Amino acid sequence: MDNRWENNTENGMRLEDEELSVERIFENTEVPSWRKQLTMRAFAVSFLLSVMFCFTIMKLNLTIGIIPSLNIPAGLLGFFFVKTWTKLLEKSGMLKLPFTRQENTVIQTCVVASSGISFSGGFGSYLTGMSERVAKQLGEAKYGLDYKNPEIGWMISFLFVVSFLGLFSVLPLRKTMIIDFKLTYPSGTATAHLINSFHTPEGAELAKKQVRELGKFYTFSFLWGFFQWFFTAGDDCGFSNFPIFGLKAYENTFFFDFSATFVGVGMICPHIVNVSILVGGILSWGILWPLIETRKGDWYSADLDPHSLQGLQGYKVFIGIAMILGDGLYNFFKVFSRTLAGLFNKIQLRNASMQIPVVEHSSPVGKSLSYDNQRRTQLFLKDKIPTWFAIGGYFTLAAVSTAILPQIFHQLKWYNLIVIYVFAPSLAFCNAFGCGLTDWSLASTYGKLAIFTIGAWAGASHGGTLAGLAACGVMMNIVSTASDIMQDFKTGYLTLASPRSMFVSQVIGTAMGCVISPCVFWVFYEAFPDLGLPTSEYPVPFATVYYNMAKLGVEGFSALPKECLKLCYGFFAASIFINLIRDGLGKKRSWFIPLPMAMALPFYLGSYFAIDMCVGSLILFVWQKINRAKADAFWPAVASGLICGDGNWSLPSSVLALVGVKPPICMKFLSRATNTKFDKYLGS
Amino acid sequence: MDNRWENNTENGMRLEDEELSVERIFENTEVPSWRKQLTMRAFAVSFLLSVMFCFTIMKLNLTIGIIPSLNIPAGLLGFFFVKTWTKLLEKSGMLKLPFTRQENTVIQTCVVASSGISFSGGFGSYLTGMSERVAKQLGEAKYGLDYKNPEIGWMISFLFVVSFLGLFSVLPLRKTMIIDFKLTYPSGTATAHLINSFHTPEGAELAKKQVRELGKFYTFSFLWGFFQWFFTAGDDCGFSNFPIFGLKAYENTFFFDFSATFVGVGMICPHIVNVSILVGGILSWGILWPLIETRKGDWYSADLDPHSLQGLQGYKVFIGIAMILGDGLYNFFKVFSRTLAGLFNKIQLRNASMQIPVVEHSSPVGKSLSYDNQRRTQLFLKDKIPTWFAIGGYFTLAAVSTAILPQIFHQLKWYNLIVIYVFAPSLAFCNAFGCGLTDWSLASTYGKLAIFTIGAWAGASHGGTLAGLAACGVMMNIVSTASDIMQDFKTGYLTLASPRSMFVSQVIGTAMGCVISPCVFWVFYEAFPDLGLPTSEYPVPFATVYYNMAKLGVEGFSALPKECLKLCYGFFAASIFINLIRDGLGKKRSWFIPLPMAMALPFYLGSYFAIDMCVGSLILFVWQKINRAKADAFWPAVASGLICGDGNWSLPSSVLALVGVKPPICMKFLSRATNTKFDKYLGS
Repeated sequence: MDNRWENNTENGMRLEDEELSVERIFENTEVPSWRKQLTMRAFAVSFLLSVMFCFTIMKLNLTIGIIPSLNIPAGLLGFFFVKTWTKLLEKSGMLKLPFTRQENTVIQTCVVASSGISFSGGFGSYLTGMSERVAKQLGEAKYGLDYKNPEIGWMISFLFVVSFLGLFSVLPLRKTMIIDFKLTYPSGTATAHLINSFHTPEGAELAKKQVRELGKFYTFSFLWGFFQWFFTAGDDCGFSNFPIFGLKAYENTFFFDFSATFVGVGMICPHIVNVSILVGGILSWGILWPLIETRKGDWYSADLDPHSLQGLQGYKVFIGIAMILGDGLYNFFKVFSRTLAGLFNKIQLRNASMQIPVVEHSSPVGKSLSYDNQRRTQLFLKDKIPTWFAIGGYFTLAAVSTAILPQIFHQLKWYNLIVIYVFAPSLAFCNAFGCGLTDWSLASTYGKLAIFTIGAWAGASHGGTLAGLAACGVMMNIVSTASDIMQDFKTGYLTLASPRSMFVSQVIGTAMGCVISPCVFWVFYEAFPDLGLPTSEYPVPFATVYYNMAKLGVEGFSALPKECLKLCYGFFAASIFINLIRDGLGKKRSWFIPLPMAMALPFYLGSYFAIDMCVGSLILFVWQKINRAKADAFWPAVASGLICGDGNWSLPSSVLALVGVKPPICMKFLSRATNTKFDKYLGS
Repeated sequence: MDNRWENNTENGMRLEDEELSVERIFENTEVPSWRKQLTMRAFAVSFLLSVMFCFTIMKLNLTIGIIPSLNIPAGLLGFFFVKTWTKLLEKSGMLKLPFTRQENTVIQTCVVASSGISFSGGFGSYLTGMSERVAKQLGEAKYGLDYKNPEIGWMISFLFVVSFLGLFSVLPLRKTMIIDFKLTYPSGTATAHLINSFHTPEGAELAKKQVRELGKFYTFSFLWGFFQWFFTAGDDCGFSNFPIFGLKAYENTFFFDFSATFVGVGMICPHIVNVSILVGGILSWGILWPLIETRKGDWYSADLDPHSLQGLQGYKVFIGIAMILGDGLYNFFKVFSRTLAGLFNKIQLRNASMQIPVVEHSSPVGKSLSYDNQRRTQLFLKDKIPTWFAIGGYFTLAAVSTAILPQIFHQLKWYNLIVIYVFAPSLAFCNAFGCGLTDWSLASTYGKLAIFTIGAWAGASHGGTLAGLAACGVMMNIVSTASDIMQDFKTGYLTLASPRSMFVSQVIGTAMGCVISPCVFWVFYEAFPDLGLPTSEYPVPFATVYYNMAKLGVEGFSALPKECLKLCYGFFAASIFINLIRDGLGKKRSWFIPLPMAMALPFYLGSYFAIDMCVGSLILFVWQKINRAKADAFWPAVASGLICGDGNWSLPSSVLALVGVKPPICMKFLSRATNTKFDKYLGS
């Protein structure tokens, strides 16, 4: 999924802390100045974790495009590394600074900012979508202007000129959003609770156990990835092609591919997401595609390449896009209208509260929270960031970027960019506000908006496809970082970290991400020459989706196979309809209605990861039945360990591929008939 | 291994019961008369369990030839079934007889007697060794008299005329052995403690949990076998050919074959046995065979069939035989001398105790045990079996058998049999006595003795090979059942079951076994036409070993390849030497010295099951480290579940093979080169 699913129940076990006054516990702990919150060791640890997460996220980007929230392992491991470090120093008597909550938040912010770039950098979507491989496999590179192959130089420059704009664009509004509007930011709040709890004695004890659990499953997952590698000599080899439900089901992408990553992702994603994906998989690969295939020769030409978009593949891609767009559009209007209504409401409230000096009586929890609020507000407002700095920064960056970007993408003109930069701050604000209310970042939806508008503006003959994709990148980076920094301000607010140290950490993290992510992507891109192709180990599903959206925006529906448009309309409408029913029934009564966005995922990609994720769901479910308390305390650690271990195996695995070391054995699955044939062939 | 490894530590957790007076607990429980101990329900349950165990043991017979003790599951499941049955009846008010310890012992005895036939019937050794398949694969069926194919008719008749002789032969000595000599019979004693504990409230509770655990692992193991089946279309396919250490190691038989049975067997066998097998495997398949292979063309002809006994295969088989014979000879003399010494000792003690009315003061535990002893002795002596019945029975059976056996095996003459039946009772007594002292049944050693003596007597031209194998069968059945019945008398003594009911149960159990075992064997023999061949799923390793021993005995060393005899002498001597060191150092200090018999096992068969068994050892070891108490209480149940579940999967699996249903998928492991070749072939 090109939206990151933030699961705000994941720290559910900690949210009861809310009932007590957290700041009373830390009353006697001094809060260091903002400069002292920014330590070398924090950034060293951040760098380490950034690289680790970058590999994990990149692997997810390039395989299925679902990125679960990695806040928990970031917080946990950041705490663990610095704590170990400070303990060692403490023993040797060399410790100068104790490890504080604020420093922990700085690490967290830096890592999240850095690994955020791995997502918003578009390596799993628009950026790979620009490449020759994706364009050519679809047989559509006629203009010559319609692709731009990834190169490490321009990728880093591109990210540097667009990734900081978002930070500056919403900077002046931090007080309005955090203090006046009191926006929830569920993920940011959960992270803050996690960090706060780490720094209480019981929390530290639990964290230690969680880290041990994480380490155990990290090791298992890493070694399992390593073990699997030996059996992957050649295509269709190895555990990732295990036809556990038989060969017929395997041909229709129903199998368990033994990926620890996807099982971990399944544990983190809510059950309904996993079930939705499975339902979508059954609907598409189990029913719809086999049905369309019976129309071979009628609905589409029988002698096409199996991956041609004029054939069955076209149905898969465009029906998926239709559902994603339907869901995106619905949610855009929903979140946008809620944002406006919320905004209106909040402004009214603020105006009202301006007449009343203290808001204590309106606080739902009462006195203890209001002490927390007072202390937090006081520290949040202590370190100021001048508004001229924010506005000046935005304008300077926008000017630089307007000058440089057309050099990178000739198809993107300076006037396109000026229009984008005029509208961007308001869209960034909308996204940051919407995210604060609903925890749902619409970054990719804004990106799609840019694809269609800028693509159509540039036009097909002027490389509109590429212009659209590049504009998507600009837009996504701005709105995504804007919501990220506001989340982090919320975390900082709740952990008494200074907004200044938050901002600096975010800037450093973003800079790290702008270098690390392209490098990591480059390793994958070089190591796997078939990356981006549907048969690859790394199919980068959303690259195809984004490229085709850009083409649709530029060329209209002419490229679609025969009956595809009708089906697309149907699924587009169905997607909106299902959303309407979900919202109409309300959260409690709609638990059994699948999410259209999740349903659309396997349409192009296949159902195998749906099986994996449902296995993750099942494991969590059974574990909770057996020992609820233990499961709730440890599942985030276990899931993170599974995801990161397997994700990090992709580092040595791509290095092995780069240096040309190939696995020795192929574990192959043959039908009895093929096997007999093969044995005869070998015998003769 | 053709000896069953009785692991007398397996009930270690119950042996502390000894310290308390067991019979005081049961003081108020009435002991039913011997006729009432023999109930219909007991024999119904026995029949069920017999069939189940027969499949399990047969599978072990036909794959590796190691039979672990199944006393625990027999006791446990017997208790479970009758208890469930009586509980149901109790609720419906229809229960006439409560379930007693004595009835439990009857079931136990019947099941052990019946499944004993699966071992002593020689389906994994002499009986299959007679078959055309085994004889012909070695290219040695020149006389035409040298094989006899298994047929259900003659197998049942054969077993019926030889299996009851052993029971009668030692019957008159039961008082001498159990009461006067107070022989230990570790397995029998352990079983009795198990049964006694079941009938205490806490024991029943624990047993319930153990049964649940057994059931869980039984189900897992059965389903795992079922799952594996789907991937075994063709040779070298499926999990049982998983080259987990790489293809090179796989070629030298080092791999984990994912067999739940062997893992379970590994859990039951003492660590030293598993390690010995592994050491033997490394020594032979890792070092010796590759070394001998470099002499190809020199030590043996290069253009021989790879399974010809004139080639490398001959080295494997005969070196293995040499080690087994060395170990057998050593242990024969050791146990025999101990038996004689023990006998002398016991007789002296008995003569001494005849002068002193009560032996209480010599009892090590004191008063409580002596109450137990008194009560047990009283009940043991209550029901008499007249000596004329035993002697008469033996003579009748011997006469019938001498008349019938030469009809089945023309090579075996009536005078051969008369000689055997003259010596048999004393050998049976020796084995029963030795087993009582050491828990080590030498049945297969006596069998080998018969092979060589009778084989040589008959001579090559008169089908000495087959005469030897048939004589081996007669001898093994007699001495094996003799030690079994004495074990059961000991169990009966300790659970207050009457010797009469024990005897009747043993007779019924033996009769069941004489019918069930050949039928089960027949199913395997028909379902798998390659059974007995080295490449088969069921290679029946000891069939080849026994056949070749018989041939050696008849034809001498002329059949051996070039340097084989020297190596055989070396390994024969090494086997005796290692045993000498083991005994010289004493039990405690020799823990690290491997057992020669166990080392010889993989010589012919390969090392894969050594890996499995070591995995079993490892699991147990780790489990004990994590939770000693739980591991000790449940590992016998877990191991039994694993063994029986997978073993019983062989029932549906052979039925599927019989009706011609073949698995659909082949999971194959190819080297990268072969895979590339294959992909090209498929593509063209």
